[in-house]
Amino acid sequence: MGFWKSLFSNSAVEPAKKTRLRPVANQNGQIFFSTDRDIDLYELEELCDSVGWSRRPVRKVRIALQHSFVVISMWEQRGGFRRLIGFARATSDHAFNATIWDVVVHPDFQGKGLGKALMLEVIKELRRADISNISLFADAHVVNFYSQLGFNPDPEGIKGMFWYP
Amino acid sequence: MGFWKSLFSNSAVEPAKKTRLRPVANQNGQIFFSTDRDIDLYELEELCDSVGWSRRPVRKVRIALQHSFVVISMWEQRGGFRRLIGFARATSDHAFNATIWDVVVHPDFQGKGLGKALMLEVIKELRRADISNISLFADAHVVNFYSQLGFNPDPEGIKGMFWYP
Repeated sequence: MGFWKSLFSNSAVEPAKKTRLRPVANQNGQIFFSTDRDIDLYELEELCDSVGWSRRPVRKVRIALQHSFVVISMWEQRGGFRRLIGFARATSDHAFNATIWDVVVHPDFQGKGLGKALMLEVIKELRRADISNISLFADAHVVNFYSQLGFNPDPEGIKGMFWYP
Repeated sequence: MGFWKSLFSNSAVEPAKKTRLRPVANQNGQIFFSTDRDIDLYELEELCDSVGWSRRPVRKVRIALQHSFVVISMWEQRGGFRRLIGFARATSDHAFNATIWDVVVHPDFQGKGLGKALMLEVIKELRRADISNISLFADAHVVNFYSQLGFNPDPEGIKGMFWYP
């Protein structure tokens, strides 16, 4: 976790670029975003476990992170310790379309606006890359959450569809 | 279009790999799939024009093709001539998810089962890469077409959503 170490170092050499850490607003400076892909995949697995997701092979998760266009993780920092508390990623063609996957906030940190902050960070990164078409597939119980962030379900009758062999 | 030239050459050096061409079944050997990304982007623009899509900057289309996981084009061959008559591509994280975009068949070639053949080819490529989660966003008038290919709209209440700034 070199990026974390560099947070506490005194080096002034492009810290933003090196660490790619940004504090989350209104969180007393204790919660940070990172765009670093070098995440401990077992820590990520623990986070996904905490919200009851099915386990996925770590080998494939590594590939998926490498081939995601945007990866945003969210960390709590207390003293010298840090803990992964949120995650989201997006696939993209780097030009027109991006699709957001695997949005998760640890249950201990839900209800504090962090899911919204995480999504706004993903959108900001995608807009910065000039991606105009941002999509996602929402489980029924989170459609309202995404609607409040500006996502429209079935716009102009467009349907999200999944292939079942 | 080196891949096309090699179709007519007598070279036996891995032609499948070099040309990456496959004849489409039941089309009298006149229609081929290609996975080559080195497509004339103005020919692709003409194809998209033929179905009334909005024009997109060629520079961005090139980037999108480079960063698509699967690109399938469909060609008619007559004598020494070839013509781009269909296209589809998919973005992916190379591990779990793929989303299919830009599915198009030239109007002169619609109603012959070529859209279905094209989609089956895309699905085959994605399955070969062990992608289990294949999705797309379907305009209202093509939902039935995709349903017949095994795509389910809103499975288990999952909603396709698009962000509107």
